[in-house]
Amino acid sequence: MGLLKELERRDPVKIGEELHRFAAELYPICRSITGNGIRHTLAQIHKRIALQITEVPTGTEVFDWTVPREWNIREAYIKDVTGRRVVDFQHSNLHVLNYSTPVRAKLPLSELRKNLFTLPEHPDWVPYRTSYYKEAWGFCLSHNQMLALADGNYEVCIDSTLEDGHLTYGECYLPGRSVDEVLISTHACHPSLANDNLSGLTVATALAELLSGRDLRYSYRFLFIPGTIGAITWLARNHENVARIRHGLVLTGIGDPGGFHYKKSRRGNAEVDQAAAHVLAHQSESSEILEFSPYGYDERQYCSPGFDLPVGCLMRSVWGTFPEYHTSADNLDFIQPRQLAASLRICTALVDVIENNRRYKNLNPYCEPQLGKRNLYRSSGGDAIGEEINARFWVLNFSDGEHSLLDIAERSGLPFSTINEAAELLHQAGLLATFPDPSEGNVPKEESEEVESATGGIHRGRGARTRD
Amino acid sequence: MGLLKELERRDPVKIGEELHRFAAELYPICRSITGNGIRHTLAQIHKRIALQITEVPTGTEVFDWTVPREWNIREAYIKDVTGRRVVDFQHSNLHVLNYSTPVRAKLPLSELRKNLFTLPEHPDWVPYRTSYYKEAWGFCLSHNQMLALADGNYEVCIDSTLEDGHLTYGECYLPGRSVDEVLISTHACHPSLANDNLSGLTVATALAELLSGRDLRYSYRFLFIPGTIGAITWLARNHENVARIRHGLVLTGIGDPGGFHYKKSRRGNAEVDQAAAHVLAHQSESSEILEFSPYGYDERQYCSPGFDLPVGCLMRSVWGTFPEYHTSADNLDFIQPRQLAASLRICTALVDVIENNRRYKNLNPYCEPQLGKRNLYRSSGGDAIGEEINARFWVLNFSDGEHSLLDIAERSGLPFSTINEAAELLHQAGLLATFPDPSEGNVPKEESEEVESATGGIHRGRGARTRD
Amino acid sequence: MGLLKELERRDPVKIGEELHRFAAELYPICRSITGNGIRHTLAQIHKRIALQITEVPTGTEVFDWTVPREWNIREAYIKDVTGRRVVDFQHSNLHVLNYSTPVRAKLPLSELRKNLFTLPEHPDWVPYRTSYYKEAWGFCLSHNQMLALADGNYEVCIDSTLEDGHLTYGECYLPGRSVDEVLISTHACHPSLANDNLSGLTVATALAELLSGRDLRYSYRFLFIPGTIGAITWLARNHENVARIRHGLVLTGIGDPGGFHYKKSRRGNAEVDQAAAHVLAHQSESSEILEFSPYGYDERQYCSPGFDLPVGCLMRSVWGTFPEYHTSADNLDFIQPRQLAASLRICTALVDVIENNRRYKNLNPYCEPQLGKRNLYRSSGGDAIGEEINARFWVLNFSDGEHSLLDIAERSGLPFSTINEAAELLHQAGLLATFPDPSEGNVPKEESEEVESATGGIHRGRGARTRD
Repeated sequence: MGLLKELERRDPVKIGEELHRFAAELYPICRSITGNGIRHTLAQIHKRIALQITEVPTGTEVFDWTVPREWNIREAYIKDVTGRRVVDFQHSNLHVLNYSTPVRAKLPLSELRKNLFTLPEHPDWVPYRTSYYKEAWGFCLSHNQMLALADGNYEVCIDSTLEDGHLTYGECYLPGRSVDEVLISTHACHPSLANDNLSGLTVATALAELLSGRDLRYSYRFLFIPGTIGAITWLARNHENVARIRHGLVLTGIGDPGGFHYKKSRRGNAEVDQAAAHVLAHQSESSEILEFSPYGYDERQYCSPGFDLPVGCLMRSVWGTFPEYHTSADNLDFIQPRQLAASLRICTALVDVIENNRRYKNLNPYCEPQLGKRNLYRSSGGDAIGEEINARFWVLNFSDGEHSLLDIAERSGLPFSTINEAAELLHQAGLLATFPDPSEGNVPKEESEEVESATGGIHRGRGARTRD
Repeated sequence: MGLLKELERRDPVKIGEELHRFAAELYPICRSITGNGIRHTLAQIHKRIALQITEVPTGTEVFDWTVPREWNIREAYIKDVTGRRVVDFQHSNLHVLNYSTPVRAKLPLSELRKNLFTLPEHPDWVPYRTSYYKEAWGFCLSHNQMLALADGNYEVCIDSTLEDGHLTYGECYLPGRSVDEVLISTHACHPSLANDNLSGLTVATALAELLSGRDLRYSYRFLFIPGTIGAITWLARNHENVARIRHGLVLTGIGDPGGFHYKKSRRGNAEVDQAAAHVLAHQSESSEILEFSPYGYDERQYCSPGFDLPVGCLMRSVWGTFPEYHTSADNLDFIQPRQLAASLRICTALVDVIENNRRYKNLNPYCEPQLGKRNLYRSSGGDAIGEEINARFWVLNFSDGEHSLLDIAERSGLPFSTINEAAELLHQAGLLATFPDPSEGNVPKEESEEVESATGGIHRGRGARTRD
Repeated sequence: MGLLKELERRDPVKIGEELHRFAAELYPICRSITGNGIRHTLAQIHKRIALQITEVPTGTEVFDWTVPREWNIREAYIKDVTGRRVVDFQHSNLHVLNYSTPVRAKLPLSELRKNLFTLPEHPDWVPYRTSYYKEAWGFCLSHNQMLALADGNYEVCIDSTLEDGHLTYGECYLPGRSVDEVLISTHACHPSLANDNLSGLTVATALAELLSGRDLRYSYRFLFIPGTIGAITWLARNHENVARIRHGLVLTGIGDPGGFHYKKSRRGNAEVDQAAAHVLAHQSESSEILEFSPYGYDERQYCSPGFDLPVGCLMRSVWGTFPEYHTSADNLDFIQPRQLAASLRICTALVDVIENNRRYKNLNPYCEPQLGKRNLYRSSGGDAIGEEINARFWVLNFSDGEHSLLDIAERSGLPFSTINEAAELLHQAGLLATFPDPSEGNVPKEESEEVESATGGIHRGRGARTRD
């Protein structure tokens, strides 16, 4: 259980501040599902963890979809008759309908209004809107801004390009003792929205940093990808490899002040589902477990029926249920250092469970072994036994090959860490044998190194350009 | 989903009034488990729907039972010493113990009282009592009527006959694309009791009218039979055919003002159980799902362990739980047009689910298909999706061969109709394939036409006389 | 259902008083896991029921454990400087740390204190403490007693022996029609503690008395054994025979005023678990069903994963949850005659269920049989049926080979006795056939008589000395 213990030795205030500082660094970048915004973002992440970048050309067919043209933008504004910029992309990249086609025009307010998006119920907030797959242009602004627009002609400029290029994603692969993988996926396509999803990007990056260079049971793959089309593209390019994914987690919206929500995988009884429920039940913030539903984040793709991967989704407040969702109010004040640090803690605890969850075999299955003669029991009888000793009885009784440590933790109501420590003690005392770990038979092969390598120069494969 | 939509295009007030009018027409008839009362009743039903009448002779052995002698009655009264009829069958057929043997006698009040049945706790109501299998005679009257009887001799007359004859039942068979059947069974043996069971008779008749002449997936068989002995007789005569019954419903007591109760089949997880629970959960009246129990209506026979058919029972108030049950207070005021119409609506919704519930196969199981390019998605991103689009994701994700549309409706919490419409749209868009419907392989054979025919003259088979 | 009915014909006040009188008789004896205390206790039980005594020598290896040296004690005290005994074993055998090594010494209060045990939170109570497997000596006394000790030297004497000898247990075997067994196990090692476990000893003895000499379906084995090491020793010596145990119950702490608690077997769905839950649900005291946990009484050994026997544990208050637990306040006032009698009643009801629970086969599975012609139904129809008739329908409908009478009782909500009586009536009427009872094929063999005999002289086997 080294990971969580190690994390807990560090100052959580500093961890939170560092996560928030990184979010602040990424905040101004105008990201979209393609283009230089996401490239710039991945470059910043790459300064912290080894990241392999893949560029997939426009027009590439990925299942039922096609990689779109690449979108980039330099500036955009609305000028009134006096030449004053009444709406300016420089102030907030939310002001432009994401994926707007270029436009330069003069038009009266009555015409302009058809291309303006506002939130009347939150008149000071700017909405976030996109039009990835239907050509359109538009501006998002606060409702009060719009009301203040005088009649007359306006000059609009969106200096964007929508041209053949690439879709870009980043991958951080940390090889473990087994090629069986844990997938951590987080979307990197939203512009200046803090909770959605700088929270996911920063926590995933910090988790990858924590895991880097360690002796791990599983291999870990962190994906920093554009939502939907990015996950679909990655799955199309890795169709044969997904069987390696033993556990997976979509990380998103984990910086806001709400309690935790874990949405189960489509399977509903995957080990990651059990582990997440356990970890959330044994921490202090409020939490809720949600059944799988097909709408949401990229678990939609990982859990499509053809893949049906064991991938859940960890959030704080659920998308769409809080007013700040997809508005300018999802800013850096909305994600607090304390909340980011606690989310990283949950992820770390979850990894600890997944790394340590296994089955043991009780070598003395007939009656209890005598713990006292091994100094694993109290010496004087008559009063109550403590949780540590109780955990030993639970592990001994249920180490029958049927029950994993997590099963035993659930059944006993004790934390996984207590059960795991009991198992390690009993194992050292020769009372338990380990079962062969099915994942550990899957050792890395030399020939598969290239694909999984997180080092090396630019890779090209199946029409895509990959560099680290 | 044509049936319910079509019903909803009609004026529910008129539907209710028409159902109540038919109940009023049948109300005065003195029905019993055999005799002219039930024959007359079936004749009235036959004016509305094609009905095949079967007459089974007295003495026919039907499993552990024997078809009893036929009972008919012309009149019955109790006269006091002045010759005044103090109890008269002409006022209410409930006044005679149903199946009373004939009697003509003079006897003092003290003797007469042994053959009188009253309800002291409802002193103005007349109870309904029967003695089918033990020879007896008796009168039912209000407790106040009895208290008013002066001492002295009384003349009693029950001008009934209990003689060899027939047991009569009616059957309306509507052939569908498959010979697999939906059975709707309702008892037709109770005299002037409105909820029990003119409500069942009129709603079943109206449902059969609604289904007549349509292109149906299943064949539908409506049984109008005497309770217990009728169901046993029908099962004995159709033992080999019951395997065709894929879904079944006993309809009874569905006119009173109480909320709905659906009693599950013995199997407990039949498709009709699931469908009924869904339909009741998605309507506005209160409702409750009851576990199977072996006492009740004719589901007792359909769900006997040798048959164990997927037949549930739809009621409003459960028999025996309301004071009007089996008394003269179960009259035409107790069943309101609005309640009858709503019950017909529930039955229609249930048939719609059963007719349309099937499994589809997602032809793009790897990741989501791109709904936008098929005009099945909204064009601008960033705000919430509606229920229609959400239903499409549910259908796509779970159309894996394991889940029926009803399973998907249950899991999503969406109404079956919304899920079914989504599936039809996706099917039209080429995104779903249908699975072969197991019931549709069972096409009608020429040689089985005779038995199933709802047309033709008098049929004779196995000692029974059948006419339509 | 003869047992419970027979018990109920006796005066429950007298039953309770007799149980309490027996507890009072056993109360002063200084029991431990070995030694003359338990021998004396078994001798008293043997006056009431046939008991086979087994003596297992010190040093015998039993699974992971070794039978310890035998402990006996004559007297023990602490004398102050005036020669007054300030703590005296004669007043209460709880005053000596159970299994204390002999000691004779003079030592100052400051030294003495290291060997004193008190309960500061209950300053007038003496705690019960043991040191079976670590050599130690000590005294237990009330906290107020300790506070009253003046500074100065004290003379301590524990006149005990800890020498090679035997571990002693008693077994009462009541042969039934089958060698399949019901195991009733109760620990006999605690000194003057009334609820823990004179309540178990007396109720088990009374139950064995009640069952003695009867025609029983199962054979019954009552174990009166030292806790933990006794159960382990018995299991080690009977390893091959435990497969005969079809149902088992640990009886302990069933005299206190708390409601009942039944802790399920490790299997969680054993017939004894189902039967205990049913019996507790159909009695008037509060009760709770607990999931299995590996810590507790001797079910720990019976339910160790290698054995995994269907053995539950019946208690009133759960060990450790009431303040009197393992203190001098667990005295004869704590166990009331009424409570002991009610506990015996529960055990008897449970035996009745286990003895009578079987599966029947409905010989008329198609439709209901006509109960009326067999006088198993009411004659006049129209009003409600009673529970007895309802029970007949339940038994008929579910006697399909899948459901035991207990299953039917559970599903119907009716008491097992009502269901069983219905089944007996229907069986007599020729409507049900019995299935062969799997346990009844296992008839006793002549050659196995010796081991199971509860008669005869001293037996010697595998180094142990056995006498009855």
